[in-house]
Amino acid sequence: MNDKASDKIVPFTKDELQRMLDHSPFIAFLGLKVVEADPAKERLTMTCAMKPEFERGAGTGQWHGGPLAAIIDTVGDYALIMGLRRGLPTINFRVDYLRPAIKTGLVITATVRRAGKSVGVVDVDVFNDQKALLAIGRATYSTLPA
Amino acid sequence: MNDKASDKIVPFTKDELQRMLDHSPFIAFLGLKVVEADPAKERLTMTCAMKPEFERGAGTGQWHGGPLAAIIDTVGDYALIMGLRRGLPTINFRVDYLRPAIKTGLVITATVRRAGKSVGVVDVDVFNDQKALLAIGRATYSTLPA
Amino acid sequence: MNDKASDKIVPFTKDELQRMLDHSPFIAFLGLKVVEADPAKERLTMTCAMKPEFERGAGTGQWHGGPLAAIIDTVGDYALIMGLRRGLPTINFRVDYLRPAIKTGLVITATVRRAGKSVGVVDVDVFNDQKALLAIGRATYSTLPA
Amino acid sequence: MNDKASDKIVPFTKDELQRMLDHSPFIAFLGLKVVEADPAKERLTMTCAMKPEFERGAGTGQWHGGPLAAIIDTVGDYALIMGLRRGLPTINFRVDYLRPAIKTGLVITATVRRAGKSVGVVDVDVFNDQKALLAIGRATYSTLPA
Repeated sequence: MNDKASDKIVPFTKDELQRMLDHSPFIAFLGLKVVEADPAKERLTMTCAMKPEFERGAGTGQWHGGPLAAIIDTVGDYALIMGLRRGLPTINFRVDYLRPAIKTGLVITATVRRAGKSVGVVDVDVFNDQKALLAIGRATYSTLPA
Repeated sequence: MNDKASDKIVPFTKDELQRMLDHSPFIAFLGLKVVEADPAKERLTMTCAMKPEFERGAGTGQWHGGPLAAIIDTVGDYALIMGLRRGLPTINFRVDYLRPAIKTGLVITATVRRAGKSVGVVDVDVFNDQKALLAIGRATYSTLPA
Repeated sequence: MNDKASDKIVPFTKDELQRMLDHSPFIAFLGLKVVEADPAKERLTMTCAMKPEFERGAGTGQWHGGPLAAIIDTVGDYALIMGLRRGLPTINFRVDYLRPAIKTGLVITATVRRAGKSVGVVDVDVFNDQKALLAIGRATYSTLPA
Repeated sequence: MNDKASDKIVPFTKDELQRMLDHSPFIAFLGLKVVEADPAKERLTMTCAMKPEFERGAGTGQWHGGPLAAIIDTVGDYALIMGLRRGLPTINFRVDYLRPAIKTGLVITATVRRAGKSVGVVDVDVFNDQKALLAIGRATYSTLPA
């Protein structure tokens, strides 16, 4: 099919994505780092380190679910932004928490399931340092021209 | 029906809820404040002020969707915690963004739709200072004994 | 705000909605009946009777969740169709099952939470004959011109 | 980890799953057929043929979204039932419609993402005859002992 929103657009590189991420105060606060940008597979991988502000209970080293949800929303968005080269509003998303995230950095992979002319849908998997799956997200973004 | 998870439990007061909120580093960072706790209606209302770290684009005054999602997850959780007096893990939730949140504090109301013996379901509405509806959430929490 | 997709459109009446419903083979099979169409409140109420094909286990009289999900998708859609006078594709939806639906007809109310220029969001509540809440849905539809 | 709900249970075979499916009036009406049951990969594949009652608009040959949602709920459920050998109630699920399903049979694959002691999460992909992805589902089921 020839109905993808990203036809004929040169994708953002890894460095361009990182610069755009760092330009947002909230995303800079999260501290997301792009580790692999694969426009052919429509897949984007980032990492995120723990910060004291992310802790659920003081001294537990466990991530609160809130930052995980925010990370899922953001990495999913950038998987589409990679191919479309512009900011895309989130319409809605779902997060499922599968295992506690304790004393670990995160590896997040986002894979585009559909990049249509009005909406795009992305799946996001969040892993710990040991490659155990901690949380999964599914998000819908508006791909309409701004 | 006599199958509610909260039967015979004395609900948390507003002050008790606030203390529990402030005990979590992430929630303290969000800065959520309980303004009304109504166990009879199974409804909880909080407010949240803007912080520089929540900004989507530098200087815009617009909330990033990430903190909104984290706030929805948290306020929904506490609407159930109010009646059950213990921490409850989030199973999953959905967020829908309806309007941009710009240069405003938030008023968040969470209403329990079902507090069963194994799961609870809560609806969360997020309003701006002018009472416009900005985002809505629907979340499922585990109510199983720890 | 003056940004609703339904500005200046004369809403469908209850009878017009029923005719449109009956024109779809699947919806006619479900047997949905419009009982109240309230465009001012952007709220639509339908009923649905049990059929043998909807049964979860033979002889139990319990609704399978599948027809409930289909009913939620459809009634939510028509709450927006009421104001926009045209078919609207579902983008996505979520269903939460709260209590078993056993030996009962259904009363379904759908309330528009947002009818924007590109997407609309609707909440749907499903009750049994005794007004107990059985299932809830939240659905997003495309409101873009066809 | 040794915390899977299915530890030490002999999985249902393809034929056992088909018998259980056919025992439900609603699922028999859908006409789902198991084509591959892979307990090692926690993956289940079924097919479903078009029926006149599934049509969105008369004579269009297009599937209404309702049966697609019901199919997603059911196939996802059986991906967990395969390993647990008992019926499992759906807690909630999300469906995203990606492309119209027109004049085609369906191939549905369900993959378990997590089978915990209280809840299980399953991803479901729905394809047409040409292997185009039409719809995706993500569902949570109760895995608690009955």
